[in-house]
Amino acid sequence: MTYCVGLKLDRGLVCMSDTRTNAGIDNISVFRKMFIWETEGERSITLMTAGNLATTQAVISLLNERSKPAEDRGAPSILEAPSMFQAAKLVGETLREVIRDQSGIEGPQADSPFSATLILAGQVRGGEPRLFLIYPEGNFVEAADDTPFFQIGETKYGKPILVRAYDPAMSFEEAVKLLMLSFDSTIKANLSVGLPLDLHIYEADTFRTGILRRIERDDAFFEAISSGWGEALREAFSHLPDYSLT
Amino acid sequence: MTYCVGLKLDRGLVCMSDTRTNAGIDNISVFRKMFIWETEGERSITLMTAGNLATTQAVISLLNERSKPAEDRGAPSILEAPSMFQAAKLVGETLREVIRDQSGIEGPQADSPFSATLILAGQVRGGEPRLFLIYPEGNFVEAADDTPFFQIGETKYGKPILVRAYDPAMSFEEAVKLLMLSFDSTIKANLSVGLPLDLHIYEADTFRTGILRRIERDDAFFEAISSGWGEALREAFSHLPDYSLT
Repeated sequence: MTYCVGLKLDRGLVCMSDTRTNAGIDNISVFRKMFIWETEGERSITLMTAGNLATTQAVISLLNERSKPAEDRGAPSILEAPSMFQAAKLVGETLREVIRDQSGIEGPQADSPFSATLILAGQVRGGEPRLFLIYPEGNFVEAADDTPFFQIGETKYGKPILVRAYDPAMSFEEAVKLLMLSFDSTIKANLSVGLPLDLHIYEADTFRTGILRRIERDDAFFEAISSGWGEALREAFSHLPDYSLT
Repeated sequence: MTYCVGLKLDRGLVCMSDTRTNAGIDNISVFRKMFIWETEGERSITLMTAGNLATTQAVISLLNERSKPAEDRGAPSILEAPSMFQAAKLVGETLREVIRDQSGIEGPQADSPFSATLILAGQVRGGEPRLFLIYPEGNFVEAADDTPFFQIGETKYGKPILVRAYDPAMSFEEAVKLLMLSFDSTIKANLSVGLPLDLHIYEADTFRTGILRRIERDDAFFEAISSGWGEALREAFSHLPDYSLT
């Protein structure tokens, strides 16, 4: 499994992904699930992947190949898509193409063992920062004020804290803290999600890759947040009134 | 879907179940998922159900029929099982029998559309309070010190708070508060789990039904816990250190 979250804030976009992949619980590897395309001063696009690793790697490879200058490549490039909407369309079509090629099946593809789901976040000059969730069928939805974040992979354990503490006006520092708590809840409950984590903070209207970090297994801040949150939760719990049995 | 939790505490057993059933999201009903058998002074046994409603109702009906005195009923009764272990065995066999009859399939039954999963909690004189999770195949596992609670149904959203705040020494009042928080996290995230909730608190060595409550949609304590928890979480969140970007 996998866990990735994209947050849309007033001041930009924050993406976090884990790196664990597994084929059975005795075959665990570390693979990057966050990929960035950039034309400095013009666009920065982040893609996060969940699902069949062969599928997502093929999608990334195709997007990479097609973004390299070559006279005969023909296919449109993610570095040339005129808007984030067109970039999402391109990525969605690439995903559908890969799943169709691997499974040999036309039509709905969410149930295919070759399935995958993607989060696309970024900004192209001339537009706002935008956040998309892309389905295996190649179609996609965009984050709006009512649904300002997307999760893919093992999404349930880490959702309650996002729902409760997300605020579009929050700082990047707070947003990273929130994401770490959401990942910590997931990692504590599910072996298929694991450190290290990849983080990309894109600041609106900079049109370049922002802060990129890899949060390693022994990251002091992550450990402090994880243990601090356990204490804070128990403290908050003890301050709520107890149920009355009488 | 459904959400039920059974907690094993030092002082007894606490069970909570929701009441929402749905066949599609436009066909929602309220059905009790908690059932109690009692012989006062001798045993109190609580059963909670998740899965196919026809299956779980048939299981309950069979257990009820067979617990009524009748010369020719033949099958063993949950009111006569000599121990909680034997009661779990009986319930497991009844569940397997129902799924096999409905699906016509022998062998593993977890994938059957007629599948169901049960939590059995209680105490029979001569033994300790015990808590079991019963699978569609009729086999079961028992809660031990390392895994002191069981969840069935939509279990993921409400697990992180249970993992963080459960303590076997907690009071019944605290335990109900904890369960309400776990249910609140689930209800906020998933439409297929809903109020009202059923609650049974069994105090160890009383051998009789304990406190039984139905927590209705407008329950003042539940609402206070739900909103108080949102504030407490945001407060706890704000007191944790922010991530440093520098």
